[in-house]
Amino acid sequence: MDLKNIKHPSEIKDLSVEELQQLSEEIRSFLIENLSKTGGHLGPNLGVVELTLALHQSFDSPKDKFLWDVGHQAYVHKMLTGRTKDFDTLRKYQGLCGFPKMNESEHDVWETGHSSTSLSAAMGMAIARDVKKEDNYVVPIIGDGALTGGMALEALNHIGAEQKDMIVILNDNEMSIAPNVGALHNVLGRLRSGQRYNWIKEELEVLLKKIPSVGGKIANTAERIKDSMKYLVVPGMFFEELGFTYYGPVDGHDYEDLFKSIDYAKRTEGPILIHVLTTKGKGYHPAENDKIGTWHGVGPYKIESGESVKKSSGGPGWSKVVSDTLMQVADHDEKVVAITPAMTVGSKLEDFKSKFPDRLFDVGIAEQHATTVAGGLATQGMKPFLSIYSTFLQRGFDQVVHDVCRQNLNVAFGIDRAGLVGADGETHQGVFDISFLRHLPNMTIMMPKDAQECQDMVYTSLNHQDGPIAVRYPRGNAKDHPVEGQYDMVPIGTWEVLKEGHDLVILTFGTMIERAMEAAADLEKDDISVRVVNARFIKPLDANMLRQISQEQLPILTVEEHALQGGFGSAVLEFFEEEKVAYPFISRMGIPDRFIEHGSVDDLLEEVGLTAKHIQNEVKEIVPTKEKRA
Amino acid sequence: MDLKNIKHPSEIKDLSVEELQQLSEEIRSFLIENLSKTGGHLGPNLGVVELTLALHQSFDSPKDKFLWDVGHQAYVHKMLTGRTKDFDTLRKYQGLCGFPKMNESEHDVWETGHSSTSLSAAMGMAIARDVKKEDNYVVPIIGDGALTGGMALEALNHIGAEQKDMIVILNDNEMSIAPNVGALHNVLGRLRSGQRYNWIKEELEVLLKKIPSVGGKIANTAERIKDSMKYLVVPGMFFEELGFTYYGPVDGHDYEDLFKSIDYAKRTEGPILIHVLTTKGKGYHPAENDKIGTWHGVGPYKIESGESVKKSSGGPGWSKVVSDTLMQVADHDEKVVAITPAMTVGSKLEDFKSKFPDRLFDVGIAEQHATTVAGGLATQGMKPFLSIYSTFLQRGFDQVVHDVCRQNLNVAFGIDRAGLVGADGETHQGVFDISFLRHLPNMTIMMPKDAQECQDMVYTSLNHQDGPIAVRYPRGNAKDHPVEGQYDMVPIGTWEVLKEGHDLVILTFGTMIERAMEAAADLEKDDISVRVVNARFIKPLDANMLRQISQEQLPILTVEEHALQGGFGSAVLEFFEEEKVAYPFISRMGIPDRFIEHGSVDDLLEEVGLTAKHIQNEVKEIVPTKEKRA
Repeated sequence: MDLKNIKHPSEIKDLSVEELQQLSEEIRSFLIENLSKTGGHLGPNLGVVELTLALHQSFDSPKDKFLWDVGHQAYVHKMLTGRTKDFDTLRKYQGLCGFPKMNESEHDVWETGHSSTSLSAAMGMAIARDVKKEDNYVVPIIGDGALTGGMALEALNHIGAEQKDMIVILNDNEMSIAPNVGALHNVLGRLRSGQRYNWIKEELEVLLKKIPSVGGKIANTAERIKDSMKYLVVPGMFFEELGFTYYGPVDGHDYEDLFKSIDYAKRTEGPILIHVLTTKGKGYHPAENDKIGTWHGVGPYKIESGESVKKSSGGPGWSKVVSDTLMQVADHDEKVVAITPAMTVGSKLEDFKSKFPDRLFDVGIAEQHATTVAGGLATQGMKPFLSIYSTFLQRGFDQVVHDVCRQNLNVAFGIDRAGLVGADGETHQGVFDISFLRHLPNMTIMMPKDAQECQDMVYTSLNHQDGPIAVRYPRGNAKDHPVEGQYDMVPIGTWEVLKEGHDLVILTFGTMIERAMEAAADLEKDDISVRVVNARFIKPLDANMLRQISQEQLPILTVEEHALQGGFGSAVLEFFEEEKVAYPFISRMGIPDRFIEHGSVDDLLEEVGLTAKHIQNEVKEIVPTKEKRA
Repeated sequence: MDLKNIKHPSEIKDLSVEELQQLSEEIRSFLIENLSKTGGHLGPNLGVVELTLALHQSFDSPKDKFLWDVGHQAYVHKMLTGRTKDFDTLRKYQGLCGFPKMNESEHDVWETGHSSTSLSAAMGMAIARDVKKEDNYVVPIIGDGALTGGMALEALNHIGAEQKDMIVILNDNEMSIAPNVGALHNVLGRLRSGQRYNWIKEELEVLLKKIPSVGGKIANTAERIKDSMKYLVVPGMFFEELGFTYYGPVDGHDYEDLFKSIDYAKRTEGPILIHVLTTKGKGYHPAENDKIGTWHGVGPYKIESGESVKKSSGGPGWSKVVSDTLMQVADHDEKVVAITPAMTVGSKLEDFKSKFPDRLFDVGIAEQHATTVAGGLATQGMKPFLSIYSTFLQRGFDQVVHDVCRQNLNVAFGIDRAGLVGADGETHQGVFDISFLRHLPNMTIMMPKDAQECQDMVYTSLNHQDGPIAVRYPRGNAKDHPVEGQYDMVPIGTWEVLKEGHDLVILTFGTMIERAMEAAADLEKDDISVRVVNARFIKPLDANMLRQISQEQLPILTVEEHALQGGFGSAVLEFFEEEKVAYPFISRMGIPDRFIEHGSVDDLLEEVGLTAKHIQNEVKEIVPTKEKRA
């Protein structure tokens, strides 16, 4: 079996267990080798090699539907469906996507990136199958972390009641990105260890044998007890209560165990959950021994040592700047509490957790709950800081509107990964948050130009006494290091002029400032004098500065690494309409009305037209150059 | 005890059970009498009279925190906290709010309106209490319907794991608004009936007595079995598994039972859930016998008969127009499937349900799941119609972005209650959906001018083959009746001129059209000629018509019953910027940047300045009147 030439999963149908084991090893070697160059989600994929092969041998994709929850564990599935040859382009611009992608293969029947969606989508597919009177299996594969997301629980509740045929594979590796938390995690833990259920089962049989076998009422009672005990001591009570048949635990690296469970599932009517135990990073030592989530998603690494191959990165990561500031402020202010939905590692909150274990709450993949917990804290005069990725804040949107903004509570939002994120692609780009937050009454939104200002803004967000306030910050690294202990309030709604100029004003913020400054410097050569403003408050705008600009009748160019619809530039347009100042000199640059796929941030900025060169050209369109003027 | 003079809940501290029973009857009479005039949430409040009195006698509000989930059941709480006198203004403009409201009373510690938020907020308060080393009870009161909302399940998972002290009152009336659905509902049903658990408990004791009392291994086994059986047969396994102590079921209309359970809860460490059984509408026959949810929230009624006192309403309700159309289309197209998150009654889908029981899915209070189920259906070529209130669609926002728009799936959204909703107030106004949907790539948004166009749009939404599409429609009644069986595709992105004019163009849609037409008619008297355009597509805009208007250099006034930030008018501003047409003649009217409280829609439109008169005045500001011109 030549791994690279597998075009269709039907080709592995007749492999023996031995051959499958051999293929598993080849796949592992391939992944370890290739990802050492491209980076990617190594840990999750090494964990599901046998599971994926067993599924593809047992079912007929794409007639049978595999839904990979979150989707970062679909590499093996991609390899079995003809995409092995593309792995050198993994997560690169116009290369293989790191998540399932319908336009790559008919075997990708559902696209993912955010967690906990697979059960609901599977329910839609199961309903469609039954309405159309078709006959196929629907097989969502969901991790133990994703299972605690509210929408997955909503789905369990609905599927269990409707009793649709569905085979849910619970891929339990005791981690999501980081180690899992929550009561459901404990439920699974008890199931994993077989604790309670198994010994009771055995002891019960011993006991029942001791009961005197007389006729009449007692024997009858014993029988009834036997029946009900069987039901009660069946493992997976939690799932059984919700209407699922529970089967497990199954060793996810043992083909015979896997096939046995899949056979059982195929013969079961109604929804069944197979509890498969897997080891993240299986077969690669550094990843297998990872206890905090470092090997969940990685950049290039040295295979021998597991050491990361990193370019020097400049300043500290933005997440680190934020969490360090949080720690400094928390040190002097006991009211500061941090909340993260399963992103302790991603948001660099490990140090905060060590220092203030009672003031860091990892609530699991539960963005809705996280947001409203922050709201509850704020009602009691606490200073909650909700650290959350821009794209995941979408999950807590109603809670931001209804629980936080409407009650005008002092909740600080740390919006991580704001802007283009690069390799994770369209499911993770943080380019909508301004549009979905800007129209919310009481909300303040800001973005820093550098690490020092970021530190000031985190401090400001914690001490703002006038309702919810968000500080957005990008993925990647800052250029400067903030001065420890030095932070101050940033006056709300104030911008700052970074460079003077008299031909045109660029209003921009965050990562675009550097590019605007570069463009402005170049434009000097054409004798075009551009003023560059750090429009660090996206809401409220700096009304004074805008009024002054309009008095000068200077053309305005807004530049944002964000969707144009409803974004910052749109706010500037609205401002002048509200002022009843007819101001026809406004142009906007930003991300057009489509989803932006994966690639390096530089590639993507080039694609959407947000480089220094693009800015320069746009300015020249608006302001005639020296030559043209001459 | 004079009901109307109760100023503080401490005044009921010393009442005997008999006195409480008498007070309960007074409260019931008061509610039945008062709500017959004002309307309101009668059923839920009649159900919690004893529960509320028992809670206020047992705890010390506001030191102890009551969080009323959803909040429509807080009337009795309002009465005990000094607001009985205000009930004649209930849900009226500037009157008593129908939900908890911090600015009404210090006893309202958390505001609600959307369901399933109370546990998360309570968790925030419990964390705050413990960090501050304070000592008080946190008591969320949540219904069995609200408990199935994803965020409530996320909260159970977190609270159970953290083991914070908290007393959760599960108010189980077997209904949310309509009868509940879902597997968790079945779990509660088994608990309610005591089925399984209770008889096992009894039989087990009989059995254990029969075991020969010998020493050594057997006795030891018997002891261990006894212990573990006690644990296994304890009712409420589902909650116990999640880390909660379960206590129940408790008769929610029996004071002794209630007090016993509260005493037990106070002595329990960690989170406890008290399962209280109540009867919605208790004590008022028409409401008590309601099996579908008619008496959940009502307008004025005749006490004797329960008959509703309704003004004649003109045409059919908008929800009815939509559901009737759905039925007609579904009759000829088996791919049409309807989904509702617990709003079968509210969205008038009862007839659809009777006619197509296999094609209507009430998923319970689970907007996230509902949205992605629709997405899953669409991948299989089905035509899902997700009927959802504007304000509740906020709950499914990430799913709209990530699962539906990003995959460009053909999902039809029926956005019910779009615009101001009136008496339900700020938690329910549907004035943000354009802002949170307009920036999503692939999305189409439309709103009909009348019932016939609504029918066309529902048909269009089901047959649109180019991605997600939303039809918004308001609360209340249409003016016209659509012709049965007569519907056609509305060409995407086309507007229509309803009245010609050459001085100014009003671009408006939905409910504002009538007001714009009225204003335009009046303006004729001042010799101002206004063109009125039915801008029925909010996305995409009618580019051709906009270009023509700009060629005519006519001033534009956009009018929308929606937030100004990021709304329709903002889209028009963006359009001209994108066209690079400097077009300084645009004014916008809409809802300002604050939350709008309850009152009649007319009162609210007056408040925000969206009446025909306001439009008329705005036009006169822009176009000089005859006198001024003279």
